[in-house]
Amino acid sequence: MPSKEKNLNDLFLHTLKDMYFAEKQILKALPKMEKATETDELKKAFAHHRKQTEIHVDRLEKVFEIAGARAQGVTCEAIKGILEEGEEVMGDFADSAALDAALVAAAQAVEHYEITRYGTLRTWAEQLGLKDAAKLLDQTLAEEKQTDELLSKMAKAVNQRAAA
Amino acid sequence: MPSKEKNLNDLFLHTLKDMYFAEKQILKALPKMEKATETDELKKAFAHHRKQTEIHVDRLEKVFEIAGARAQGVTCEAIKGILEEGEEVMGDFADSAALDAALVAAAQAVEHYEITRYGTLRTWAEQLGLKDAAKLLDQTLAEEKQTDELLSKMAKAVNQRAAA
Repeated sequence: MPSKEKNLNDLFLHTLKDMYFAEKQILKALPKMEKATETDELKKAFAHHRKQTEIHVDRLEKVFEIAGARAQGVTCEAIKGILEEGEEVMGDFADSAALDAALVAAAQAVEHYEITRYGTLRTWAEQLGLKDAAKLLDQTLAEEKQTDELLSKMAKAVNQRAAA
Repeated sequence: MPSKEKNLNDLFLHTLKDMYFAEKQILKALPKMEKATETDELKKAFAHHRKQTEIHVDRLEKVFEIAGARAQGVTCEAIKGILEEGEEVMGDFADSAALDAALVAAAQAVEHYEITRYGTLRTWAEQLGLKDAAKLLDQTLAEEKQTDELLSKMAKAVNQRAAA
């Protein structure tokens, strides 16, 4: 389709596919982060977020259905870059006092990417009159924000150990 | 330095270099976004953000100085991915009714990356006792959040046109 004929619905579907790819990449990354830390509290937070991410994937599939499209992913360069940077730092700071601080920072970068995209998708769904889709996207958005706040709280304890 | 010996100060400096690289990439990307839109309001917003970004680069240089380190960048895969994705979508939706909506979404993804990193850097600076650095990082963080809010407001007007 020539780009001139494209509209907000096309952009919505493209970004939905981008997030479907992103969530699946995050599902693969979280067990590595869970394994990397020796701090129980952080292990639990990553395990919990993995379970939540599975629910977010299911919700995206429902949104595809509401939009009358087949659930499929398109390569999301942004999440690839964010996760690649996280893996690099995890390697550079392995076994160090700052590893947990690095892991929390990497997880928060992922959360903020999800927050911006789900915020945008929710607004677009409302604009397109897809009320049920907007509701599902809003639920996920609220959960991503909660996770980010939880990580901010954990960062303080973790940083105190790293600075020691 | 073996990773075992690394601490929060090393992680702080690494992330500072990452953001120094990121801000310079953003400085290159903003004029392209400004050129891509035909909407005056959006053109102005991108031009304003470019000027602000120059100030953010200066502040980072001051933070390096406070931390007793030379200002230098390290490749930031995250911002590269985020900007690459923005360029792809700009190309796919060029001349379309949804171009402005795509541009705003791309700009908000950049803002959220900056918000998460400046939030982390500010907390680390406090933890490391670098009060003046924390203050500078907090100023930039507040400006990034303001820009994100402004873009959220603009998104609504822009989306109404895109959905037409």
